[in-house]
Amino acid sequence: MNIQNKINIGIIGGSGYTGKELLKILSSHPFVDRIDIYAQSSAGDSILNIFPELTGSMDDIQIKSINNLDYSADLYFTALPHGETLNYIPHLIAEGKKVIDIGGDYRLSSSALYKKWYGFEHTSYELLKTKVYGLADVLKDSDYNSDLIANPGCYPTATLIPLIPIVESFSEEIISISTVAYSGVSGAGKSIKPGLMLSEMYGNVKAYNLNKHRHEPEINQVLQNTGLGNKPYSFSTHLLPITTGIYSTTTIHLENALSQNEVDEVIKQKYSLAPFVRIRKTPPEIKWMLGTNFCDIHASIGPKRIILASAIDNLIKGAAGQAVQNMNRLYGLDQTTGLLPSKQTLQLFLEETGK
Amino acid sequence: MNIQNKINIGIIGGSGYTGKELLKILSSHPFVDRIDIYAQSSAGDSILNIFPELTGSMDDIQIKSINNLDYSADLYFTALPHGETLNYIPHLIAEGKKVIDIGGDYRLSSSALYKKWYGFEHTSYELLKTKVYGLADVLKDSDYNSDLIANPGCYPTATLIPLIPIVESFSEEIISISTVAYSGVSGAGKSIKPGLMLSEMYGNVKAYNLNKHRHEPEINQVLQNTGLGNKPYSFSTHLLPITTGIYSTTTIHLENALSQNEVDEVIKQKYSLAPFVRIRKTPPEIKWMLGTNFCDIHASIGPKRIILASAIDNLIKGAAGQAVQNMNRLYGLDQTTGLLPSKQTLQLFLEETGK
Amino acid sequence: MNIQNKINIGIIGGSGYTGKELLKILSSHPFVDRIDIYAQSSAGDSILNIFPELTGSMDDIQIKSINNLDYSADLYFTALPHGETLNYIPHLIAEGKKVIDIGGDYRLSSSALYKKWYGFEHTSYELLKTKVYGLADVLKDSDYNSDLIANPGCYPTATLIPLIPIVESFSEEIISISTVAYSGVSGAGKSIKPGLMLSEMYGNVKAYNLNKHRHEPEINQVLQNTGLGNKPYSFSTHLLPITTGIYSTTTIHLENALSQNEVDEVIKQKYSLAPFVRIRKTPPEIKWMLGTNFCDIHASIGPKRIILASAIDNLIKGAAGQAVQNMNRLYGLDQTTGLLPSKQTLQLFLEETGK
Amino acid sequence: MNIQNKINIGIIGGSGYTGKELLKILSSHPFVDRIDIYAQSSAGDSILNIFPELTGSMDDIQIKSINNLDYSADLYFTALPHGETLNYIPHLIAEGKKVIDIGGDYRLSSSALYKKWYGFEHTSYELLKTKVYGLADVLKDSDYNSDLIANPGCYPTATLIPLIPIVESFSEEIISISTVAYSGVSGAGKSIKPGLMLSEMYGNVKAYNLNKHRHEPEINQVLQNTGLGNKPYSFSTHLLPITTGIYSTTTIHLENALSQNEVDEVIKQKYSLAPFVRIRKTPPEIKWMLGTNFCDIHASIGPKRIILASAIDNLIKGAAGQAVQNMNRLYGLDQTTGLLPSKQTLQLFLEETGK
Repeated sequence: MNIQNKINIGIIGGSGYTGKELLKILSSHPFVDRIDIYAQSSAGDSILNIFPELTGSMDDIQIKSINNLDYSADLYFTALPHGETLNYIPHLIAEGKKVIDIGGDYRLSSSALYKKWYGFEHTSYELLKTKVYGLADVLKDSDYNSDLIANPGCYPTATLIPLIPIVESFSEEIISISTVAYSGVSGAGKSIKPGLMLSEMYGNVKAYNLNKHRHEPEINQVLQNTGLGNKPYSFSTHLLPITTGIYSTTTIHLENALSQNEVDEVIKQKYSLAPFVRIRKTPPEIKWMLGTNFCDIHASIGPKRIILASAIDNLIKGAAGQAVQNMNRLYGLDQTTGLLPSKQTLQLFLEETGK
Repeated sequence: MNIQNKINIGIIGGSGYTGKELLKILSSHPFVDRIDIYAQSSAGDSILNIFPELTGSMDDIQIKSINNLDYSADLYFTALPHGETLNYIPHLIAEGKKVIDIGGDYRLSSSALYKKWYGFEHTSYELLKTKVYGLADVLKDSDYNSDLIANPGCYPTATLIPLIPIVESFSEEIISISTVAYSGVSGAGKSIKPGLMLSEMYGNVKAYNLNKHRHEPEINQVLQNTGLGNKPYSFSTHLLPITTGIYSTTTIHLENALSQNEVDEVIKQKYSLAPFVRIRKTPPEIKWMLGTNFCDIHASIGPKRIILASAIDNLIKGAAGQAVQNMNRLYGLDQTTGLLPSKQTLQLFLEETGK
Repeated sequence: MNIQNKINIGIIGGSGYTGKELLKILSSHPFVDRIDIYAQSSAGDSILNIFPELTGSMDDIQIKSINNLDYSADLYFTALPHGETLNYIPHLIAEGKKVIDIGGDYRLSSSALYKKWYGFEHTSYELLKTKVYGLADVLKDSDYNSDLIANPGCYPTATLIPLIPIVESFSEEIISISTVAYSGVSGAGKSIKPGLMLSEMYGNVKAYNLNKHRHEPEINQVLQNTGLGNKPYSFSTHLLPITTGIYSTTTIHLENALSQNEVDEVIKQKYSLAPFVRIRKTPPEIKWMLGTNFCDIHASIGPKRIILASAIDNLIKGAAGQAVQNMNRLYGLDQTTGLLPSKQTLQLFLEETGK
Repeated sequence: MNIQNKINIGIIGGSGYTGKELLKILSSHPFVDRIDIYAQSSAGDSILNIFPELTGSMDDIQIKSINNLDYSADLYFTALPHGETLNYIPHLIAEGKKVIDIGGDYRLSSSALYKKWYGFEHTSYELLKTKVYGLADVLKDSDYNSDLIANPGCYPTATLIPLIPIVESFSEEIISISTVAYSGVSGAGKSIKPGLMLSEMYGNVKAYNLNKHRHEPEINQVLQNTGLGNKPYSFSTHLLPITTGIYSTTTIHLENALSQNEVDEVIKQKYSLAPFVRIRKTPPEIKWMLGTNFCDIHASIGPKRIILASAIDNLIKGAAGQAVQNMNRLYGLDQTTGLLPSKQTLQLFLEETGK
């Protein structure tokens, strides 16, 4: 990419937790030029008023009304409540813009699934088919063949990265797969809910949405494309009494034993070129991931079973970070640009200055 | 029980977190008389010096040296590091004492399993066979036919209570079972460990002992006795960044669908007379359990699967509370005596005073 | 008190955090008979639906509408938003009932202060004068000479207990006093507020209401009555990222040095008969107080200064517990009745049954 | 500074929490070249083994033995236990090296104070006098006239930044000053301590080192130099149940009232050119500071008093960040270089590449 042609960005719905992380990353991304932010209720407000902690770290931005959306940017990130992006994305695509949707409105491939799991009638069938499901660490360059990228959910990202190579290589051996995942409360967004007050959640843990979490069909869809066939899969979610982080544990019962070496090998091969997947010899700690775009994975072998443990920062790897990773890949940039801010930007700096 | 014959208690190894809870319960138990505490390194110290927060709530007790163990109490609770109780329990039993072992030294039934999972040679075969595995909420009165009770582990208690009725009634339908459990750090005991410093664990989560946790053979043993047969079972453990509480989630893949009603019915029947098992229509919250001897359980039905969620206070229901519940049952007392302190003691008070 | 004449209780506004603690204490109090709960929005609901964690520990109670308040109870606890108790308390007192107000509506003695600090016109002058300010640990039996007790605020309770004996004995020496206090978020009540979501407050700390907290005139009023005169006093408040507990640190600059012994002596004398004040040789830990009615205090002597550190459970000692302590004293019961549930109730049980 | 002459760095004692933050900052600092790390017990180990979370974000570094310290670097950061730097710093200075000591060994100016507060005999009198006390946000360029900088303590940094302008302008009016500060547990370092286990500190708060914290003479010394005279000052410290952050609250009683405007004005003037001091209209939140080199300050005016609230990240502004800020100033770099990584480095990148 020619650095002369920097990218103008529009963020639609940028006043939540994901919006904040997106802003932090994009405002220091060396190939990003202008950033416009559009929102509904916070239009007119300034971004440093909403996020006072960013004062001094980035320039202030006045939030524009989503009703005055022009088409002057090159790439739009959308982060809106379910169903609302349908009012914007088809138009943006029609205008020749690139779009990365951080919400769930384009992740599934069938409108029937939207009816069932999200409860709304999906009206943008064509884009459902042509969009790219942007699980950035498993995509090839040639996969980025659409102007619309559906950024994966946080749980699916954490769960699928370790699971895909296992299903690809050993689907014949699989008896059943069960994922049990835990998330920090920031995954529930910034809107207030009685059950998420500190006085309610401190020191607390609870399962929620058992057998009805929308990320299950999303994971299922990928596993079907990966060759799981009719082997049973199950996915359960829990809330942790912390702000940020997802821990996903997947138990795979097998017909026959697999060796540690066999399993490690397929994971290693899958991610030999993935700078954000760190393969660990011990279970990762959720804290290692905080503020980063990494996904750490570990496979533990038991008698005729594999237990996969993985962790991510739900707001970065599970949302804003992976979205920027997808932007980088869409524009042919090194995928780590702006995501290993220090090192990467420094590297670029040094290269450019010939040091 | 005649209230004239109150119980004299000996606690061997009482300066840890379990010991503290045990003391709190026993010091207000209406049928407990004297309490002796024996320990190694803290011998000579006083209990209110070790637990200053108990000042004013109970009388101080001077800790005796474990080397001067006499046999003057009626019932002994043992809470020692693995392997150490073997030096005491056989003698206590030989002296005609009752023993409730809160540690793991008598939970498994085969010495081979001790060799494999605990790494020591078990020398007390006879008692391994004759002891009662004290999962108090599933035992019948007639089961209390031994002077030695092996108090179940914290994870097995949380996991088995909801799982046993399912395996009893539907083992034929089961394809596989996978438990993923999370525990507060008090489960790791009071001894200091670098990874459990607040500066390391705050906001953190990590899996540990994958495929090698000692509670797995303990659960397996019960599931075998319950009729699971050769269906695969798996158990994984994680640390939560909180002090107290266990959350256990068990995924059961089934050959055929079961209805919510069928499943609820077997659970309800199993625990119709169990005052400490609370069956919930929604997943329990770990916080509901803190400081109590309750185990809350919930069954969620999905397509050809059941997801069981349960929670306990690991130090009470998972240790000291269940131990006292076992004491109550062993002595023919109402099993809630001293464990619903307020209500129960008050009831007794009112009954006795004829109010 | 004759045990035949047990107390019928009405709780007005009982669905918040204080209400829950009050219920837990009263439902196991040996001299409490019937408990009626009155509320506005939750009328008709049942208490175990609001607090599912109490299931099995107490009998369910249906919440009555505050509009149907009859006068059938002996003693009423009021826990309502500021200003609202004025609609009930004068009537209750007129009907010959006893009232313990856990809110702030009767704590100050002057209606001008209500205008200034609470922003409403106080219409119940007479009761402002005749009520007892119920700082239970410093009151004498003869002080309980009113049917209305204004239960002190949480911060004033924690701050005044160590401070009063110092001001009483050394007011001449005092140059200035500064209190800096920190509270868990439960002090802000159960109503939802954006800034108190776990995602906002986890790992967070912030000062709030600097120079305008309503507990400052409450403390000032007591210090004036204690003889502080025109020495400057200041009070500042902060939120802790925990659920429960208050820590109060008071710095007293002195004209001349005082010895550790002099200071310890006046504190010791003051509280020689106070079962809930624990004098510590080291600074207390907030955790020691949780779930108890204790206030732990410590005085540290520096060059021409005293630093007082004290801690309480804001919902118990700072609200429900002290309210029951006041009830006990008002009825001539041992003040610890029902507040050291185990020990105290057991003692009573044993005494009554002659064991 | 000429970018050709990049700085070679030696870190002596780099395996603790401060060392980690220092590494993170320096490894992405555009004017830093080589980084050598010296340690005692972890010599031979690799830095990514000690901090696995840094994998992929920086190159690995093998830790050298402190016994093999050569003098090949330009600037040394020392972060060692009290008293130990005396073995290294005089030699480094003698060899013409620059040194920034992050520990406390050179902060005080008199050897008598070391005897009294640190308990050791200081043997490096000359450097005590010639060193610069590096409170970076209040120093002028001309103050950086020594090769040895004593990096201020975390509490003094948070406390002094808001307090200095007040004392400078209003010392005549001051009756007394009292600071009450709270810190996350990372301030206690990485070495294990029973009282800092998560199981002990979760949900806990406690005062510690009352009237004997070593940061008090450090603050006092600065206040004396600022003109406080014989007005009484007091400093108290507490532990928060969080990992990172310091909150400092200072109460200043005054002879006469000061207006909000007067106070704001002196603060504003003092820090008009300080990029890391953010003046707030409301009390800051500790969370705003995490991971940054900012110090947020707020002044609240009451009747004849000022309450100052300030917050920092104790590991960054209170240690590693301020140390790098001092390095930048010592080398004539823009003081934010590498400390607003994104923006600053990007800016440099753009300037250098002429974009």
